[in-house]
Amino acid sequence: MGVAVALEQVTVQVPATVANLGPGFDCLGAAVRLFAEVTLAPAPAPSVEVTGVDVPQDATNLIYRSAQAAAAAAGWQGAFALRARWPIPLRSGLGSSAAAIVGGLVAAHRLLGDALDARTLLHLATDLEGHPDNVAAALFGGVVIVAHDGARLRWARITPALPLAVVLAVPALEVETAAARRVLPAQVARADAVFNLAHAALVVAALATGQAQALRGAMRDRLHQPYRAPLVAGFDAVVAAAEEAGAYGAVLSGSGPTVAALTPPEVAGAVGAAMVAAFAAAGVDSRAIETSIEPRGALAG
Amino acid sequence: MGVAVALEQVTVQVPATVANLGPGFDCLGAAVRLFAEVTLAPAPAPSVEVTGVDVPQDATNLIYRSAQAAAAAAGWQGAFALRARWPIPLRSGLGSSAAAIVGGLVAAHRLLGDALDARTLLHLATDLEGHPDNVAAALFGGVVIVAHDGARLRWARITPALPLAVVLAVPALEVETAAARRVLPAQVARADAVFNLAHAALVVAALATGQAQALRGAMRDRLHQPYRAPLVAGFDAVVAAAEEAGAYGAVLSGSGPTVAALTPPEVAGAVGAAMVAAFAAAGVDSRAIETSIEPRGALAG
Repeated sequence: MGVAVALEQVTVQVPATVANLGPGFDCLGAAVRLFAEVTLAPAPAPSVEVTGVDVPQDATNLIYRSAQAAAAAAGWQGAFALRARWPIPLRSGLGSSAAAIVGGLVAAHRLLGDALDARTLLHLATDLEGHPDNVAAALFGGVVIVAHDGARLRWARITPALPLAVVLAVPALEVETAAARRVLPAQVARADAVFNLAHAALVVAALATGQAQALRGAMRDRLHQPYRAPLVAGFDAVVAAAEEAGAYGAVLSGSGPTVAALTPPEVAGAVGAAMVAAFAAAGVDSRAIETSIEPRGALAG
Repeated sequence: MGVAVALEQVTVQVPATVANLGPGFDCLGAAVRLFAEVTLAPAPAPSVEVTGVDVPQDATNLIYRSAQAAAAAAGWQGAFALRARWPIPLRSGLGSSAAAIVGGLVAAHRLLGDALDARTLLHLATDLEGHPDNVAAALFGGVVIVAHDGARLRWARITPALPLAVVLAVPALEVETAAARRVLPAQVARADAVFNLAHAALVVAALATGQAQALRGAMRDRLHQPYRAPLVAGFDAVVAAAEEAGAYGAVLSGSGPTVAALTPPEVAGAVGAAMVAAFAAAGVDSRAIETSIEPRGALAG
């Protein structure tokens, strides 16, 4: 294939992501300003050192396997020395596995002289992750809409045209993604499908054009949150508390348990405090992270 | 209420509309540059004169009843002299009834000194029409996304940020709206719901930001067109012909039978010819109308 190592070492910043952004189940994700860092170099034998989380420290590591997948797609075989710093909590609904996949893929892609195109990277990442919304946002940054027609992925990227903070309430709970997916029914009412598609389109239009009055109250979902809320003690109260404190809306981040609120920046502190208090009232410890939409994905960095 | 006639006579231009724009079933509509004109004046007794279509020429006329509904909402009672020119074909899926409703409402609203606000007009129009997407586009112009949560309507308006023609292939068929609604199932597969919401969000993002490559092929629907296509002979072939001729996509306009294509302007003529030829091959006479998205709705005019 003629692909060769182009750099001695690369470091890639990869953002955490909020997927299933409100009504945008399985298609709408946002990158947030909370970064993992992946450093990759060619090496005679695999070595892995990830700090900040308890994950495999060998070639079975998801970041490492993803780097290998990109290298294989580019026609290169060899081993890597991988180091990573990982402030994104695991199993919290913040796209940690998507960040691992995208971090590994993009680091290898860069190391091999930008060997792959964006479409190939997105397909590789989606295959590894199983659904496209987290990985697309981690790759491209901003708010990403991605649609899969069974054969082809199509995507568009928007940068919110209004001032926006993202407040994450991260509870001391774990929700297993597979369990969160099992609770979803195979059939839904047509009225609920229309509800979600109307609100998803509305959220995208409101973000793209900065129509704050259309965003307020629009981040509602009937396709996954009603089924998953029982897995997250206090969920409905936390959403209500965020909205009462001035958030445009609050949603289950990915399959949870983190609750993500989009808010005007000036009320972000109050929204975070209200969400933590609502979790506490339900007997759940949590912490609030005030952040924002990150316009740069791993592919831009 | 203190509302009085503010003008001797008003004339309102109201656009035809393409609703159910692709995946945006019941929520995504576009105003197109094909106008009806409604002239309204206070009168001692009702009089109605509508030219261009065969409709009731008395106070049972839908335009007249809609004007009365706006007057009643504003607290004014009295009769109107109504004249209207109506180049929008009836029962063709181009929002003729929505235009009648919006034309009547807005004409009375103006005559009474802009007596109502936009939200009230949208709610009145939606109640009269039964669903919000045509009336919202006729009121506000451009591409309108409207979501109903059971109690409240929320909407946002976008102007496409890329050069865009709309080609309408209007076949010599009639589809009764009520019949077109009866064929829809009450339950849908979750995968189809996700397909539509992802593609609806993608179409909105692509239009709002001008990402043509994301629009191409994205205007697909699984919630209504598969059920309604049998009511429109040649539908699938017409869509395929439009895309082959260079359209971004083609969809059933409203509940049909018109097929609407969004296309780069430079291929609009070829797309129209291809659609008419495909209808002809299915034994259906049709005519093509080349038009574009109209940024001004009745409320702006």
